[in-house]
Amino acid sequence: MRLFLDLEMSGIGIVSAQRAHFTQPLKLKGGSVLPAFELVYETYGTLNAAKSNAILVCHALSGNHHLAGHTADNPANIGWWDNIIGPGRPLDTDRFFVVGVNNLGGCHGSTGPASTNPATDKPWGADFPVVTVEDWVESQARLADQLGIDAWAAVMGGSLGGMQALQWSLSFPERIRHALVIAAAPKLSAENIAFNEVARQAILTDPDFHGGHFYEHGVLPLRGLRLARMLGHITYLSDNQMAEKFGRRLRPGAGSYGFDVEFEIESYLRYQGDKFAGVFDANTYLRMTRALDYFDPALDFEDDLARALARARAKFLIVAFSTDWRFSPARSRELVHAMVHNGQAVAYAEIDSVHGHDSFLMDEPHYHAIIDTYLKRATP
Amino acid sequence: MRLFLDLEMSGIGIVSAQRAHFTQPLKLKGGSVLPAFELVYETYGTLNAAKSNAILVCHALSGNHHLAGHTADNPANIGWWDNIIGPGRPLDTDRFFVVGVNNLGGCHGSTGPASTNPATDKPWGADFPVVTVEDWVESQARLADQLGIDAWAAVMGGSLGGMQALQWSLSFPERIRHALVIAAAPKLSAENIAFNEVARQAILTDPDFHGGHFYEHGVLPLRGLRLARMLGHITYLSDNQMAEKFGRRLRPGAGSYGFDVEFEIESYLRYQGDKFAGVFDANTYLRMTRALDYFDPALDFEDDLARALARARAKFLIVAFSTDWRFSPARSRELVHAMVHNGQAVAYAEIDSVHGHDSFLMDEPHYHAIIDTYLKRATP
Repeated sequence: MRLFLDLEMSGIGIVSAQRAHFTQPLKLKGGSVLPAFELVYETYGTLNAAKSNAILVCHALSGNHHLAGHTADNPANIGWWDNIIGPGRPLDTDRFFVVGVNNLGGCHGSTGPASTNPATDKPWGADFPVVTVEDWVESQARLADQLGIDAWAAVMGGSLGGMQALQWSLSFPERIRHALVIAAAPKLSAENIAFNEVARQAILTDPDFHGGHFYEHGVLPLRGLRLARMLGHITYLSDNQMAEKFGRRLRPGAGSYGFDVEFEIESYLRYQGDKFAGVFDANTYLRMTRALDYFDPALDFEDDLARALARARAKFLIVAFSTDWRFSPARSRELVHAMVHNGQAVAYAEIDSVHGHDSFLMDEPHYHAIIDTYLKRATP
Repeated sequence: MRLFLDLEMSGIGIVSAQRAHFTQPLKLKGGSVLPAFELVYETYGTLNAAKSNAILVCHALSGNHHLAGHTADNPANIGWWDNIIGPGRPLDTDRFFVVGVNNLGGCHGSTGPASTNPATDKPWGADFPVVTVEDWVESQARLADQLGIDAWAAVMGGSLGGMQALQWSLSFPERIRHALVIAAAPKLSAENIAFNEVARQAILTDPDFHGGHFYEHGVLPLRGLRLARMLGHITYLSDNQMAEKFGRRLRPGAGSYGFDVEFEIESYLRYQGDKFAGVFDANTYLRMTRALDYFDPALDFEDDLARALARARAKFLIVAFSTDWRFSPARSRELVHAMVHNGQAVAYAEIDSVHGHDSFLMDEPHYHAIIDTYLKRATP
């Protein structure tokens, strides 16, 4: 009860999702066409009369549209970026109209692999196309149209969400005034792709995956999804933080010289893996990782990132975290260097943080102060 | 044919394994007792009359006793450390008698999970005990006894092999004159354990694992072992090397927007995983990773590594590689600092290498020169 009251007082309070229908076919980068689709989204704050104060927040691999506040049925179901969104918070809902959207291909209400394929009246499953960052931006632009938003005051996100913010500045240079690209990279490294590939293979080779058509078999590829998530968590944390948080601490009753949980870190990973496998869709996971792999705006510019970014008109804030080894500060600096080379407006902050890649989700005062200051200067 | 001739001329030539039987029961650290066991080993060079020129080489996670030369039936079956062992090579077989042994619990001929459990007349499977680095050293000491070797001129190894060399200096201070500890660490970090745990979970949750008793079911947990190896390979290579070797290069025919191989790195990992899963034993893999997890000589000394190492009488050469992020140079320096604190004889080399953790297996001239020089000064 206490928790509930605190939330009511300080944050967004109760929120509920909305649903947008799009009947115009969407041609995807991979070549296929979605005849129609739906996007689930939430909004916080009020769109001003000029419709100039809207901020789009894009989510990362396992995120969704529920950014802030909590659902009416469950005070504990708090949005994943609640610490940054609300009255007086860096994304100040007294000033901004904030939009969170579940990506196409997702598993939180937007059209995705578990949705019904109109051609078969069965779940899409494996037949749901691979979607790219460009496709997401295209679909989000349709949502902006429907909301009457000609240009976003800002588009922002962390990790894969940051890549969408960057892509917005390239796909629709005139429809985005600021891009906040946090804990991201201009493209994945071979090592990044390698981690994604092991995660995908865990899912694809799970006998319960059934080639992506598990819905019809009444089973879920829980083993594969669990392994994928366990592996993901290793890359989200920093080595130092893992050492601090778990070290080599043994679990009570350890010393069995077997393969049950002996070390705290094992318990943590199994818990995270189990929790995730129970709620996330394996086909969505595959597509999210593939979108990461394919993202490479410089590919059509002979790997010249500066040329690739030249058409952007947005002002940029790039943020990286010292202990992030998934997308290290060096990767963010590639973006900064290209933008500086182009004479584009870019601010860069490298935050000291122990939380690795996950830092972008954390309540880091210095980081939040930077977002706050940047957005205060960004007049709607 | 050309390959065969080259080998005959420059290296060890044809070798064949030997087998040692031990009928004295071996009490393991975990509490169980092996009533009897066998170790498979190979030797190169000649044991001198004083039996003072013997070097024991300990293998890492997926290694075995076949260090150098090739088997009679297959000129391509070259030992895994052939580049360092032979006449005129750093482990000069004109001077030294080199011994390679397959670890207890292994899957290359020594008693292990696939061996027959005398109590049941069936394969040990899951009932084969978890063995530790200390147990391996104990079993290797039995082999030394049988070979009439009172003290090794040197014990050496890379990675988990280096941990065995270190443990030799602690378990039998008077039986080892030099310990060469290469690309190792005094204990695993939480992140190291985390990677091992994901690999183990891949195997343990493979439906074909059958709780470790897959031999009786006529199946192999290939999917789990393949994932474990794919993940392992990410940690063996450096990020830089992966970028150089594979980058984001697409495979011919890529661009399918699906989950088949699109990037070269995916092809590499799948190939490595498939190859390994076909030849290695899953129960051995589990035990090798657990031996890594448990290794922690400072545990009984309130985490004081210097106190833990104080009883060693060997001289040490510690070698680390700049791009090794599995056991980084910082981990080797922990050993060096403790030994310096103790006033022990220790030399330390940090080698610039692009090959990450795998560097210890590579033909790095500077690295081999250091081993060569060190062993030239180590009079048998």
